[in-house]
Amino acid sequence: MFDSGIGGLTVVAEIMRAMGGEDIVYLGDSARVPYGIKSPQTIQRFAVQDLKFLLSHRPKMVVVACNTASAAAIEILESSSPVVVVDVIRPGARAAVEAVSGPIGVLGTEATVASGAYQRAIEAASPGREVLAVACPLLVPIVEEGRDGDDPIVLHVLCDYLRELQRARPGAVILGCTHYPLLAGAIGKLLGPRVTLINSGSAAAREVADVLKKKGLANLRPQGGVLRCFTTDNPQRFARLAERFGGGRKPDGVDYVATDELEAHVPQK
Amino acid sequence: MFDSGIGGLTVVAEIMRAMGGEDIVYLGDSARVPYGIKSPQTIQRFAVQDLKFLLSHRPKMVVVACNTASAAAIEILESSSPVVVVDVIRPGARAAVEAVSGPIGVLGTEATVASGAYQRAIEAASPGREVLAVACPLLVPIVEEGRDGDDPIVLHVLCDYLRELQRARPGAVILGCTHYPLLAGAIGKLLGPRVTLINSGSAAAREVADVLKKKGLANLRPQGGVLRCFTTDNPQRFARLAERFGGGRKPDGVDYVATDELEAHVPQK
Repeated sequence: MFDSGIGGLTVVAEIMRAMGGEDIVYLGDSARVPYGIKSPQTIQRFAVQDLKFLLSHRPKMVVVACNTASAAAIEILESSSPVVVVDVIRPGARAAVEAVSGPIGVLGTEATVASGAYQRAIEAASPGREVLAVACPLLVPIVEEGRDGDDPIVLHVLCDYLRELQRARPGAVILGCTHYPLLAGAIGKLLGPRVTLINSGSAAAREVADVLKKKGLANLRPQGGVLRCFTTDNPQRFARLAERFGGGRKPDGVDYVATDELEAHVPQK
Repeated sequence: MFDSGIGGLTVVAEIMRAMGGEDIVYLGDSARVPYGIKSPQTIQRFAVQDLKFLLSHRPKMVVVACNTASAAAIEILESSSPVVVVDVIRPGARAAVEAVSGPIGVLGTEATVASGAYQRAIEAASPGREVLAVACPLLVPIVEEGRDGDDPIVLHVLCDYLRELQRARPGAVILGCTHYPLLAGAIGKLLGPRVTLINSGSAAAREVADVLKKKGLANLRPQGGVLRCFTTDNPQRFARLAERFGGGRKPDGVDYVATDELEAHVPQK
């Protein structure tokens, strides 16, 4: 699995809850985080480097645990990978379509919303469905700063971003960035109890389980999976933040890999 | 000159105001922006790559137009450069020390404040001077999102960061990040008329002029200087934002350079 930084660990937590026996190699590209404010070309270049690093570990599947990379780079990642690639956008879109019959809201980074990937994935799953997508550029830095849903500044920023959705009252709203589940409580309160929040990470975790089982690749032991992490920035900082994002699951190891070495990485035994 | 992104153009504007005849090559590392949330080791690695790219253009001087890179990497940049290197921290610190006699406040990124670079530079210029440094991680994304000082969210965030300085009442506060001059109006209003705001970019521009004149390197024509920009991300987006950050001065050209090619760049004639 890879992500632009630490946010994808919310997806790791969902996968480990569903399939505790699977071993996971996770790459967080913290040296170049965030991806969500960058151009599609740059995101594609970084995502392919991230993929090449993961492939050097000979995985049976690659999970793109980053909505921005899924939105901008899924085609090039699929065509560059010899193993199946699961993204977080299509499972999230399908989960939303199945959950409600009315309009669907999407919260995401600038790049994710501008790409139109959620709009296309929802259209594919339920043609003609109305979609309202809102870019929320400040939410990633807010979560990374350690602020939570009780912080008055967070509530102010959320009110600003959610105004349009509060008016449109969609049946479901997709948390289209791996950082947003950490603000799910506040977002849910502001949108009200009639709106179903869709965690794209949980939807992706179900997809991962389904695909592995269908292909006969699932590791069926109920627990014992190892979580090995790599980061392109400071491993100590990564390890410190990892527990919060991973829902309490600590990585079994965090190692540094330079961005320059991602494509040429040869994993040690 | 280089910066982690577009913010350094506020420094370009100050330099072009003081020395309109100088030609400037500016590199904005927008593919890896921001530097301010990353580790010293990563910032040093990126800054040295940025320097090598600039050196391929055979400049007479290099300006580190980024407080975070100045704070984390000035020693390694100076030891790696055959030409004089001007940073934004030491000139800003000296300007503050000369402007007031009491305590000095500093606003900066996480990495700048954690490095202690302003604290050391102020101590060197005025031993024993009291310094109060506040990390403001959300201000860069706020400015990049296009919000200004009239935005209620910006005022909320500023109130939160400035609380300590409002209580301590320093005589001068250094805007220790190239993005912050765009919020100078709001910061000045919240701190009150007795506080002198120090723009680290203006201080650096004066230093650049002094050093060039002292070394007999100044281009004395009053105007006609060319501003050539390079960015590691989307040049169209860079060009669009450049005018706002550059105080109305448009670049004479914006070209793309990949981060992988920074160290091996051979400029065309």
